[in-house]
Amino acid sequence: MDNGLLVVISGPSGAGKGTICKRLKEVMKDLKVSVSTTTRKPRNGEVEGESYFFINEDDFIKKINNNELLEHAKVYGNYYGTPKEEVFKQLEEGNDVILEIDIQGALQVKKNYPRGVFIFILPPSLKELKNRIEGRGTDSKEVILRRMKCAYDELNYAFEYDYVVLNDDVETAVDKIQCIIKAEKNRAVRKKAIINKIREV
Amino acid sequence: MDNGLLVVISGPSGAGKGTICKRLKEVMKDLKVSVSTTTRKPRNGEVEGESYFFINEDDFIKKINNNELLEHAKVYGNYYGTPKEEVFKQLEEGNDVILEIDIQGALQVKKNYPRGVFIFILPPSLKELKNRIEGRGTDSKEVILRRMKCAYDELNYAFEYDYVVLNDDVETAVDKIQCIIKAEKNRAVRKKAIINKIREV
Repeated sequence: MDNGLLVVISGPSGAGKGTICKRLKEVMKDLKVSVSTTTRKPRNGEVEGESYFFINEDDFIKKINNNELLEHAKVYGNYYGTPKEEVFKQLEEGNDVILEIDIQGALQVKKNYPRGVFIFILPPSLKELKNRIEGRGTDSKEVILRRMKCAYDELNYAFEYDYVVLNDDVETAVDKIQCIIKAEKNRAVRKKAIINKIREV
Repeated sequence: MDNGLLVVISGPSGAGKGTICKRLKEVMKDLKVSVSTTTRKPRNGEVEGESYFFINEDDFIKKINNNELLEHAKVYGNYYGTPKEEVFKQLEEGNDVILEIDIQGALQVKKNYPRGVFIFILPPSLKELKNRIEGRGTDSKEVILRRMKCAYDELNYAFEYDYVVLNDDVETAVDKIQCIIKAEKNRAVRKKAIINKIREV
């Protein structure tokens, strides 16, 4: 049994990572979703253990010190992190795991697990990105301005990823990501076992 | 306009490269096919300028000396090569070009054009490969034996490719290759232009 793929969906805040991951789960029923843990307060509609594991800062820092996180970052004053145990268990069982995280987190995952597939979600334009963040209605003007500056800078990180997917249309973006996952399963580096098997005459 | 992709379909003789490329052309109508040039005698049903450009050895050697070939190799006593001019013209016009070649040729193309997408077609087993070569009925027992030994050794080269696609079923293999082509268009390394465009607020 081949190990599953760790598919990291990342990009600037407001690029549409959440919507894309939600749709991906619908069309790829076998995808396992890595649930992050955070010290951020739940937003309306977010469910404990599904959206995030919501924990307090003391508990989060314990997890860091015990090396229990695949990545962690402090963003806008809150901690976010990915529990290692659950992710690795799924991968070993041959399941593909999808991980939706910000850029700081993704770059850490890349260091800790370079075999992952790193996908940068690109907003169609910075103007559209601003509209989306404003439309969400959860952030103050000051926060929005900070995020825009941040998004502009963050586009530089796109080239540290394996793929860059433009999110001008969710269905098109999801379709591209499905293809990327399918294609990655045929990467030569992941094919040692089958080649050895074929040599048995 | 982005440059097209050069998609190199390669693998051991008898792995099913030809059948896969034929089917790929049917399902991806925009794919341009690179027509190779060879000194080999035409087989039944092969058409000049479609299957190959059939030329004599003197003319072939002139092309080598004039550096007009993207790759060339002598296989089983015959020269095979890929004319550069036509391929590069198509790529610059934004067309994807598919190139079906043996392993020696593919490795040369990789040196000359590393941006290509290199796909190794894997037969389901060496036994099945033997059946296919025998079934073609074009080769003597001695040639078949040489090809089998060669195929065994050639599996080593799979890891010099980007992708390894198992050809246990043509439709499945073609579907995988379509996904690979789609996925490759979203590679971060090919996305500089669009990221710069998005930064224009």
